[in-house]
Amino acid sequence: MGAAASCARPAGTALNGGAVAKAPAALHRARKAVGEVLDPEGLTLVACSGGADSLALAAAAAWHHGRSSGPLAAARVGGVVVDHHLHPDSAVVSGRTVSQLKGLGLDPVRIYSADVDPESALGPEAAARTGRYQAFRDAMAELGASRILLAHTRDDQAEQVLLGLARGSGTRSLAGIPPARGPFRRPLLGLSRTDTEAICRHYGLDWWQDPANSDPRFLRSKVRTQVLPYLERELAASLRDSLVRTAEIAAADADHLENQAKQVFPTVLEDPDHTGALRLKLKGLRAEPPAIRRRVIALAVAAAGGANPSFERLVAVEKLVAGSRSAGPVELEGRVTVSRGTRGTPDYGKLVVVPPSG
Amino acid sequence: MGAAASCARPAGTALNGGAVAKAPAALHRARKAVGEVLDPEGLTLVACSGGADSLALAAAAAWHHGRSSGPLAAARVGGVVVDHHLHPDSAVVSGRTVSQLKGLGLDPVRIYSADVDPESALGPEAAARTGRYQAFRDAMAELGASRILLAHTRDDQAEQVLLGLARGSGTRSLAGIPPARGPFRRPLLGLSRTDTEAICRHYGLDWWQDPANSDPRFLRSKVRTQVLPYLERELAASLRDSLVRTAEIAAADADHLENQAKQVFPTVLEDPDHTGALRLKLKGLRAEPPAIRRRVIALAVAAAGGANPSFERLVAVEKLVAGSRSAGPVELEGRVTVSRGTRGTPDYGKLVVVPPSG
Repeated sequence: MGAAASCARPAGTALNGGAVAKAPAALHRARKAVGEVLDPEGLTLVACSGGADSLALAAAAAWHHGRSSGPLAAARVGGVVVDHHLHPDSAVVSGRTVSQLKGLGLDPVRIYSADVDPESALGPEAAARTGRYQAFRDAMAELGASRILLAHTRDDQAEQVLLGLARGSGTRSLAGIPPARGPFRRPLLGLSRTDTEAICRHYGLDWWQDPANSDPRFLRSKVRTQVLPYLERELAASLRDSLVRTAEIAAADADHLENQAKQVFPTVLEDPDHTGALRLKLKGLRAEPPAIRRRVIALAVAAAGGANPSFERLVAVEKLVAGSRSAGPVELEGRVTVSRGTRGTPDYGKLVVVPPSG
Repeated sequence: MGAAASCARPAGTALNGGAVAKAPAALHRARKAVGEVLDPEGLTLVACSGGADSLALAAAAAWHHGRSSGPLAAARVGGVVVDHHLHPDSAVVSGRTVSQLKGLGLDPVRIYSADVDPESALGPEAAARTGRYQAFRDAMAELGASRILLAHTRDDQAEQVLLGLARGSGTRSLAGIPPARGPFRRPLLGLSRTDTEAICRHYGLDWWQDPANSDPRFLRSKVRTQVLPYLERELAASLRDSLVRTAEIAAADADHLENQAKQVFPTVLEDPDHTGALRLKLKGLRAEPPAIRRRVIALAVAAAGGANPSFERLVAVEKLVAGSRSAGPVELEGRVTVSRGTRGTPDYGKLVVVPPSG
């Protein structure tokens, strides 16, 4: 597919008449949301793929760049384009994106290369993601930026929540994409893809439609193009709203529960010894409700160098805590093992978490 | 549809050979799960519609009835059949169900009538449900039972979680159907519908297939027959497991968060006055994380006689708490209004929750 063919042009491509008319309202909301997350004293970078979402983000952010007065007068906005060289047009798309970002007034604008190892154990999507975030960090360091804006929309959020539900991995997973984490900010989580396309049309921006976004071999693309539309037709017309609301509620719940677990963890942790194993007081663990106990166990497993345990493995560890017939060991993801100290040994009354090498 | 035609017969109706062979394992699990929730000293009733799930539950429970020894030797198991007179065969179905329950050894077994008001503001499904639960309570009182067993399976649970997600009403909603609430126990939440049908075949029980269960005009039936199978095909083959796991995680989280909110609520509540309004200390509310603050506000609204507020309304109240330009009032579901006391008035520093009549 040629770059020109995969590029949506502003004239004659409006999906519906309403979208064009909506541009000013969506643009106003985007500018306001971006204004709330820009570094007021320095450089913020917009991560831009050349797609409609990130071009719209760049357009909204550009409005704040180089203003002569107001609380954001010292704020500057630049752009970073990451080229994965994954498709034959990538250099053309990257070049055109840079031109458009410069045309919007962003400064500086840079291209970073992030080749994807097709043999990566992570899989191609995750490997590209890892490379992209590394490039963002490199760009921040080299350009002296404090924050990076990412263009995830409420449509991305709805997809993320549905994918989290499909995994069934719990409240943090249902919380979806965080609005802020580390230097990353996502000010467009309140806007839809229809909104970002309307903003692009308003500015006459040429956005690139990544064919991978509609390739049903990728589960996320299938959710976007098939599963969500089906569910909106057959289950609930307002499903996207419900998923986004679920994310907000789950994020607040997960934040609080994780904070509580972080406070409880040191109170049930025994002083370390030379073995490298972690020991938790069974009495203290038993006094906590399951919502906290499981998170404290997960923190101990992480501290021992293990992976995030599955719910099924956590429940197996809880049985040890409750005092089931077996004292373990229970084997967890990441080769961490957990056992209950037996009567007559120094570990009696303790849950022993043994690191992979222990 | 005639009763005979809508009745699955044990011989010749096996969906696959494996289902019949599985019966003993599923039956063993069902008996064990039922044994854990029976009243060891008295009468427990099995609520039975005549469908496969509740006949299987009755069969598993009957195993514990009238045993001569063991920890459940004093336990007795009876049955209650609620006839809604919603379909022409209901008397036939009820009568056959009673015969089968008696044949399994349950004693006593009674039919209760619960006519459904087709004009109910609740809608026919909810009205039938309300009538059914009232009949269960009547049966408990008249027969001197302490507990009622309901036959919801993990398939019902998966459907419930998906319906909760479609509403987007939060963590409690994702927790689905509770294993225990008041006198009700649901010991079959770990079994599938395939399991209950296998148990019925094992016992040679004739179960009734309620045509409403596959009527796509009911959203739950549509989820059962169309939406879940679609998602298992297109999104994740193990989706039912994921939904059930989500329910377990969400239930533990919601339990803990609601308990915390119940503890916080009295600490931020001002002493009542003659007006009937509730007043909450803004400083105390602000000190709580959103997960707790929103639940405390919901408790105050409930105490004022309002309905459970929507997330969107809770967020509007939170803006009052945070000290937005507006001091309210914010109008909530159930005609409760909330406002922030303004400077110079006795209510300054307080959130005022006014009951419907206030």
